[in-house]
Amino acid sequence: MGTHGLQRHRVVIIGGGFGGLYAARHLNRAEVDVTLVDKRNFHLFQPLLYQVATGGLSPGDISSPLRAVLKRNRNARVWHAEAVGVNVKKREVTLSDGKLPYDTLIIATGVSHDYFGNDAWANTARGLKSIEDALDIRRRIFLAFEVAERQTDPDLRRAWMTFVVIGGGPTGVELAGALAELAHGTLKDNFRNAIPQDSEILLVEARDRILPQFPPGLSASAERALVKLGVTVRTQTRVTKVSDTGLTLKGVRSEVGSTVTSSVTGRRPEKSGAGLDRKSSDTHVAARTVLWAAGVKASPMGAVLAKEAGAPLDRAGRVWVEPDLSVPGYPEILVVGDLAVFEHQGEKPLPGTAPVAMQQGRYAARLIERRLQGRPLRPFRYKNRGQLAVIGRNAAVADFNWLRVAGYPAWLTWLFVHIWYLIEFDNKVLVMVQWAFDYLTRKRGARLITGESPHPLVKDPPDKKK
Amino acid sequence: MGTHGLQRHRVVIIGGGFGGLYAARHLNRAEVDVTLVDKRNFHLFQPLLYQVATGGLSPGDISSPLRAVLKRNRNARVWHAEAVGVNVKKREVTLSDGKLPYDTLIIATGVSHDYFGNDAWANTARGLKSIEDALDIRRRIFLAFEVAERQTDPDLRRAWMTFVVIGGGPTGVELAGALAELAHGTLKDNFRNAIPQDSEILLVEARDRILPQFPPGLSASAERALVKLGVTVRTQTRVTKVSDTGLTLKGVRSEVGSTVTSSVTGRRPEKSGAGLDRKSSDTHVAARTVLWAAGVKASPMGAVLAKEAGAPLDRAGRVWVEPDLSVPGYPEILVVGDLAVFEHQGEKPLPGTAPVAMQQGRYAARLIERRLQGRPLRPFRYKNRGQLAVIGRNAAVADFNWLRVAGYPAWLTWLFVHIWYLIEFDNKVLVMVQWAFDYLTRKRGARLITGESPHPLVKDPPDKKK
Repeated sequence: MGTHGLQRHRVVIIGGGFGGLYAARHLNRAEVDVTLVDKRNFHLFQPLLYQVATGGLSPGDISSPLRAVLKRNRNARVWHAEAVGVNVKKREVTLSDGKLPYDTLIIATGVSHDYFGNDAWANTARGLKSIEDALDIRRRIFLAFEVAERQTDPDLRRAWMTFVVIGGGPTGVELAGALAELAHGTLKDNFRNAIPQDSEILLVEARDRILPQFPPGLSASAERALVKLGVTVRTQTRVTKVSDTGLTLKGVRSEVGSTVTSSVTGRRPEKSGAGLDRKSSDTHVAARTVLWAAGVKASPMGAVLAKEAGAPLDRAGRVWVEPDLSVPGYPEILVVGDLAVFEHQGEKPLPGTAPVAMQQGRYAARLIERRLQGRPLRPFRYKNRGQLAVIGRNAAVADFNWLRVAGYPAWLTWLFVHIWYLIEFDNKVLVMVQWAFDYLTRKRGARLITGESPHPLVKDPPDKKK
Repeated sequence: MGTHGLQRHRVVIIGGGFGGLYAARHLNRAEVDVTLVDKRNFHLFQPLLYQVATGGLSPGDISSPLRAVLKRNRNARVWHAEAVGVNVKKREVTLSDGKLPYDTLIIATGVSHDYFGNDAWANTARGLKSIEDALDIRRRIFLAFEVAERQTDPDLRRAWMTFVVIGGGPTGVELAGALAELAHGTLKDNFRNAIPQDSEILLVEARDRILPQFPPGLSASAERALVKLGVTVRTQTRVTKVSDTGLTLKGVRSEVGSTVTSSVTGRRPEKSGAGLDRKSSDTHVAARTVLWAAGVKASPMGAVLAKEAGAPLDRAGRVWVEPDLSVPGYPEILVVGDLAVFEHQGEKPLPGTAPVAMQQGRYAARLIERRLQGRPLRPFRYKNRGQLAVIGRNAAVADFNWLRVAGYPAWLTWLFVHIWYLIEFDNKVLVMVQWAFDYLTRKRGARLITGESPHPLVKDPPDKKK
């Protein structure tokens, strides 16, 4: 390895999520200098973020300091900075406060929420991507119960105890399930006036079934499990308006299903939605807590690549990559993880999940090593080990391609896989054991309402009619 | 217990700290209706707050939801509201959004920081009383190392790696010790340019020794332990100015000691302070992180009682209470915990510690029960089981009156006592085991830099001279 003294190949990685971090770790033994740029100082285990939002875990439980994870990677440094652009000709990353030259660039900046052109909804219907998002949602949820406890007007109390989750993908299903367990289990006996068990939890999905990326049979299992937990599931329903006091829903016409019965279970939801007027197509739901789990859009780095390198983007602004994950025409720029659209396996684009990001990060690292050795590497292939979605305690769905499972076995698999990954990363053994224990005993100890000003959401004075 | 149907005696407790919560819990079997008013929804285990500030524990680890703690107290309700005043004639608490009548009122609102008339320092030298304080301090500390890693100007880098703690009481000693362990232990090998081991940690105390509430021998032990950890201790030193770039220190003249040698150990600190000019009496220290652990002042409820009930206050605004903890002339208003000044045992006022607050809370509950039964209760007496202060791993001081211990035995006692109290409150067994394990292995996993905007402190562009 006699390259000391010479300038080594410089790899810059933007983003310390699963894709970026796996790339950095797998470059451990390569003859390169790695700089991992992130504006946060920690890696976030996003699959459990909904647990922070619902008070089951603390932010520290699902985060690992990037420096601690890369401590033993002697060829890697962590650069706490914000990447705002790329100069593809000079091969330089533009930071908000400097520049960073590269020989190979790996972009792993992921995606954020998309409100489909209604960005004003962001203030009311918070999405769940960051620790700050999770803490804000946690604050909204627990503050809503506190306000309901002091309300004497029954309509207002009901509005404060109505929670709407928009989007029936894995995040929406997890949030709705956790909310139902919280309201119908954990918070039992905690209040004297408001009865959490009377809460209404509504899951709204525009398509004809929840978890559309799963086989229809598992979607139906998931919906049955949610209904059993007390969630009202409304498929083929779009949100047309979101405000501080509630939202407007509109049925989506389709040949196969109607707006009020689920096309999966073929029957009406067991509980009727709070304030739902079922006669008209436009219904108003009085709800003080609306959570957004519907759409994603690319992080700004996608647009940067389109402008600077003519990279082709999909509708969400993600980058269509070559079979080796590079940007067309720029073999030295690789895109991995949620920001990449990879469609070279003869099927639809790969989903934006942690396993895809990890495998792409590892591939990018291997590609760089092979190139330095002058050897070729076959195109990236995703090895699909299956997908999982959790609904609540003892309830999950798992699709292993060769096997489809719902209920308790799927839930055990989900628990095992998540604890396994967290432990692999940061050895949080006892944290996870504690959490699994609390989860089983329905305890949620991290339900703090924090933030500088404790009462920004309270617009209804208690003990008074509006 | 045949009082159903009749209006029961209404006890309102303001504040869910140790004093208020112990009062509420011990009223469990009394024939009263208890309302615990707090603007936060959780009880905070303040003695471990410095661990959150230095990344050792998460906020959820040292907080317990008030509702969960009082779940089985069927005669108690939690009222999430802010008390802003008291109408002592109508016997009503004024909330920011309503009113709450009482028959007996227990005020347990504690104290906050005092900047001795320099309130502008609050923005720069953050104190440590709330979860938000702790998260802000955590953010400042870890951001400082991140900025130092990217600084090329050695003077600026040194300023970012200089941490000053003002106040040599237990909180200041704990913070300084934890900072030293962080810099000289945990963060080892985490950086490539900034070397955390070169950090300067300065503890400033105006009096002639740190931990002045302990016997002089234990103060000397504590100072030796801090110096061994790499802390520069400056006693008899006052802060005259605090700014974004540093602070000005002034020696306090006294007959027994000089400004640069410690009157306790009688020798100069082993390391010299960063940028300390030892010749003049006024010295400027270039430091980007200044923490405040110096003074306390009463929460606003003290002034309310002075105005409404003519309550006598001490210089910090705390209420001088009667031997039964009541406000003079108002037997139905009791003050417990840090807000009370109790001086009836022939010695100096009781310290503002958790054991005092717990015992006073329990006394207040018993007093109310006795009064309802028409029976007298002897005046409050504090049963002093001793005091503890921790300096770091394996280092603490303990004063049990009959026994004084320093070093490892004191540290074990400290660990045991704190784990015991946390477990008693919320059964956080495994959290505490995990924490003790991390503490022993010098791991600090909760070192997240969080907050909406990641870079508010960064005023020095890296790679540039100022």
